[in-house]
Amino acid sequence: MSNTPPISRFPVPEIGSLPEDLRQRILEVQDKAGFVPNVFLALAHRPAEMRAFLAYHDALLLKEGGGSTNQEASGQGLTKGEREMIIVATSGANRCLYCVVAHGAILRVYEKRPLIADQIAVNHRKADITPRQRAMLDFAMKVCLHADEIEEADYAALRAHGFTDEDAWDIGAIAAFFGLSNRMANLIGLRPNDEFYLMGRVPRQK
Amino acid sequence: MSNTPPISRFPVPEIGSLPEDLRQRILEVQDKAGFVPNVFLALAHRPAEMRAFLAYHDALLLKEGGGSTNQEASGQGLTKGEREMIIVATSGANRCLYCVVAHGAILRVYEKRPLIADQIAVNHRKADITPRQRAMLDFAMKVCLHADEIEEADYAALRAHGFTDEDAWDIGAIAAFFGLSNRMANLIGLRPNDEFYLMGRVPRQK
Amino acid sequence: MSNTPPISRFPVPEIGSLPEDLRQRILEVQDKAGFVPNVFLALAHRPAEMRAFLAYHDALLLKEGGGSTNQEASGQGLTKGEREMIIVATSGANRCLYCVVAHGAILRVYEKRPLIADQIAVNHRKADITPRQRAMLDFAMKVCLHADEIEEADYAALRAHGFTDEDAWDIGAIAAFFGLSNRMANLIGLRPNDEFYLMGRVPRQK
Amino acid sequence: MSNTPPISRFPVPEIGSLPEDLRQRILEVQDKAGFVPNVFLALAHRPAEMRAFLAYHDALLLKEGGGSTNQEASGQGLTKGEREMIIVATSGANRCLYCVVAHGAILRVYEKRPLIADQIAVNHRKADITPRQRAMLDFAMKVCLHADEIEEADYAALRAHGFTDEDAWDIGAIAAFFGLSNRMANLIGLRPNDEFYLMGRVPRQK
Amino acid sequence: MSNTPPISRFPVPEIGSLPEDLRQRILEVQDKAGFVPNVFLALAHRPAEMRAFLAYHDALLLKEGGGSTNQEASGQGLTKGEREMIIVATSGANRCLYCVVAHGAILRVYEKRPLIADQIAVNHRKADITPRQRAMLDFAMKVCLHADEIEEADYAALRAHGFTDEDAWDIGAIAAFFGLSNRMANLIGLRPNDEFYLMGRVPRQK
Amino acid sequence: MSNTPPISRFPVPEIGSLPEDLRQRILEVQDKAGFVPNVFLALAHRPAEMRAFLAYHDALLLKEGGGSTNQEASGQGLTKGEREMIIVATSGANRCLYCVVAHGAILRVYEKRPLIADQIAVNHRKADITPRQRAMLDFAMKVCLHADEIEEADYAALRAHGFTDEDAWDIGAIAAFFGLSNRMANLIGLRPNDEFYLMGRVPRQK
Repeated sequence: MSNTPPISRFPVPEIGSLPEDLRQRILEVQDKAGFVPNVFLALAHRPAEMRAFLAYHDALLLKEGGGSTNQEASGQGLTKGEREMIIVATSGANRCLYCVVAHGAILRVYEKRPLIADQIAVNHRKADITPRQRAMLDFAMKVCLHADEIEEADYAALRAHGFTDEDAWDIGAIAAFFGLSNRMANLIGLRPNDEFYLMGRVPRQK
Repeated sequence: MSNTPPISRFPVPEIGSLPEDLRQRILEVQDKAGFVPNVFLALAHRPAEMRAFLAYHDALLLKEGGGSTNQEASGQGLTKGEREMIIVATSGANRCLYCVVAHGAILRVYEKRPLIADQIAVNHRKADITPRQRAMLDFAMKVCLHADEIEEADYAALRAHGFTDEDAWDIGAIAAFFGLSNRMANLIGLRPNDEFYLMGRVPRQK
Repeated sequence: MSNTPPISRFPVPEIGSLPEDLRQRILEVQDKAGFVPNVFLALAHRPAEMRAFLAYHDALLLKEGGGSTNQEASGQGLTKGEREMIIVATSGANRCLYCVVAHGAILRVYEKRPLIADQIAVNHRKADITPRQRAMLDFAMKVCLHADEIEEADYAALRAHGFTDEDAWDIGAIAAFFGLSNRMANLIGLRPNDEFYLMGRVPRQK
Repeated sequence: MSNTPPISRFPVPEIGSLPEDLRQRILEVQDKAGFVPNVFLALAHRPAEMRAFLAYHDALLLKEGGGSTNQEASGQGLTKGEREMIIVATSGANRCLYCVVAHGAILRVYEKRPLIADQIAVNHRKADITPRQRAMLDFAMKVCLHADEIEEADYAALRAHGFTDEDAWDIGAIAAFFGLSNRMANLIGLRPNDEFYLMGRVPRQK
Repeated sequence: MSNTPPISRFPVPEIGSLPEDLRQRILEVQDKAGFVPNVFLALAHRPAEMRAFLAYHDALLLKEGGGSTNQEASGQGLTKGEREMIIVATSGANRCLYCVVAHGAILRVYEKRPLIADQIAVNHRKADITPRQRAMLDFAMKVCLHADEIEEADYAALRAHGFTDEDAWDIGAIAAFFGLSNRMANLIGLRPNDEFYLMGRVPRQK
Repeated sequence: MSNTPPISRFPVPEIGSLPEDLRQRILEVQDKAGFVPNVFLALAHRPAEMRAFLAYHDALLLKEGGGSTNQEASGQGLTKGEREMIIVATSGANRCLYCVVAHGAILRVYEKRPLIADQIAVNHRKADITPRQRAMLDFAMKVCLHADEIEEADYAALRAHGFTDEDAWDIGAIAAFFGLSNRMANLIGLRPNDEFYLMGRVPRQK
């Protein structure tokens, strides 16, 4: 690994030197994935920001359902795979290598479909997705690229496919959060782990 | 206030019904500002996301200095006013009404300069700022609008004005975080409090 | 005022040295507003162009009704406040500091609404305006940004809100005229008078 | 002429019915050109605006030299042909049929070069012009397309080719004025006279 | 012709030195047109590429009908003049001087209408064309500028004007082929022959 | 394969029904690759266009060296892998799924580097390439996106990295040719073969 380019423009701390909570989180991820995704190492340069980043990430991506304080109105429409579709589509639009490659891998694993991530990253209009997922990605792309133009008609287009407004929040919030993530990754030159490129492409990997 | 348009497309919870930590934070802000900024009420619809949002916000905007784990390399170059300049410039580019108006107010208060926020929101090239601040905003605008093109030359341009690379992280991270905030505000139709519009424009305002 | 940046990249003539008609016009404005808006001083560097500029301005903004030679078809739909809304919205899109600040002030004064100018300058889709005014600004923004694509459908959209074609001329002509004004102001670095920033924001500001 | 499409979306007044000053001006133009350019007929629908339009046009295009109140600093650098080059280049960028065709004709006549107008309208970078004219058109195109980004460096680039700042005003003001004209022509669907298309292309064209 | 700028950035071979098939083709064109269009001379620098270019050109532009292997479904809707309209409109959008000027000439000759090429090159929305031709050019312009967004709705819009899907292939393929031609011409600085500028503008020009 | 979406919007001919030369070419490709890339089947709908397409493709991609008639000046600088880099980068910019996936596979195979294609497709600025290759891709991307702005300075930037002008032709011509290919693929909805997605990613594949 001596010849590998650095994973960030900024210093990358040793795992052992990190605050306990971050160290613990990283070890858990390593245990689960078999390696430490570089985003954990690179963002650890700024522990307070990293904690907020992870908390935001978890709030949007780990929960089931819409998470509203109003449980009944809460959307339950987005599967974990669909959340990753939003990430991959918007990260492609933002030309963020780390997020396309890393979340492309997660999308393939969640969906158990080896082609879907490349399709969505390059052009979601050509992807093997349902009309409902197409509407979801159209909304996400508008939040990504023209959020200032989001209007009632955009919400209505989602409702026509059975999405609740809580789902719309989820879709938009994931697009917005990766508006942050993509910019951070491009800012610091975050390099995807080599492992991500192949993940989910072959039947038995690991 | 009965005729005022809603502050969000989504339900706005009663303060009394909120989890204790959020309720406490809101009351503190109200105590300090004299009113509750609408972002606190609107985001409280999603408590977990709000906590992460506030933690990120505080990590980037409340600290002094660069916050790196490597204290010596840590940039100390950005004043609180300068951090708000970044927010106002990028929020203007993203056409986010809430952030331009609310952070424009904060910028005026911090800098004690009643004209600076409107200047930066409309066109930072015409603002009464130093060449160093101009370089800071040029970098922030590139992260806002073309983060995929950020390169060594952009960091070098900052260094030529005495910024450290930790300062570059700060500048870029604030631009990236408001890449998220602006999209959320436009997504939910977040309405600025009327109070913000005048704040910092008149000598003794309350 | 010795430390104030210059109001124009170009020489600014003394009022006393100006041709009588321009001198008279400037003194009238000063009498009415309490100060001389910088556009009058900066454009006076070129008296012939200034006279044409003022004549165009007056033809579009001072009249009542549509001004057509065909009186019956003449639109009477645009109030003075609405004409200023068009200016503020398109000047925001063109990132023209002078026009956003100066006409934002005039808009506040005409409408007696202290928030409306900032709303329209940042994002007219989020402003407290009627659907008819929204259609007016959508048309104006298209003339501002994509005039080559103006078609029958755009006129029809205005008619659906009760505008006549003469109103459409008014809306488009104001957007076109500030296409000129915004470019001139950005060309010469025209600086708004400090007085404009606060005008119309506080109850008794005289 | 019964089958010809209308020259404007708006009513076109009879010449005989126009105010005397406009009628006189039109007859003079007709006498000189052999026909009445449609812009005179179409704009006459709004006499006050037309007078201002013509006054602005004449101030920028008919004078010799820079026209500044400060005679000594006044630029004398722009020939009439070069002024038309600015019009043709920016009108091409704005996709304004009337101005490309009508001013293309005038440019050919002034320069006595039948190819120059098409070259500049399509891509000024490929036109048979001098490096000085190329710098002039680069500045004009920036005022046309990105006036908010005009800075000292743009003026410096002109000075490097011997242009004075008064010349810069001329170049920018012509680009700005046709920012207005192009939008008006596209707004009203102004149709170029058939005569313009061939003018200046053949040796003796009466 | 000694003072004429070069027709290409690259060496232009002598006709006599060319492979027999290219030499023959060039002599045929010269015989028919009275001169050798510069594209033949400039591309001859790369004989193999030129042969492919001409074969593609001929397949799209010389045939009658749609050329599909499925004769019955084959579109026959595009006249030679309409094919040239597509070329002129997309070459205008790509700012390709050679193709606008040379194919503008061919369009005038085919259509026997001296104004049509300039109209379409500058703004096809203002051209004297039928609604069907307008739909054809809208489709072509989308392939030219946003091919990644072509969808079923775009095909449906063509069908509404009587075009078959084979016609859609023709329209799109011509736009795509000139996506190549325009880039090549701009790459090598291909200069149009002076003869093209006037061709088709005057009654008897042979 | 019954559930697979169609590989083209248009009818796909049986291989056995094709003209002998195309049939032969397809069988050769199948023999070499183990499957028939869909582009061969989809384009065979138009045999004459397909022949020209293949001839152009082969002229640009199969040769060694620059292919100029002037052998001595001929560039020899582009390896087959580098030619594929140009294709992948520009196809990513054009959001062409077929070309990104199919040529991404070929690039991985040629370079024997499993990560390079994804890197270049998403953001060539973040790819593991040499400064010389970066200059090559910068030039190619300018031809892809802004060919009308290609100038002497762009050629000079290539020369600074040791490229000849013949290399510049090669780089630009490949970008131009895929300007055509990408538009055709998006036009007809060309679907990449499933086999391409994994090709070149695993050590021994097949």
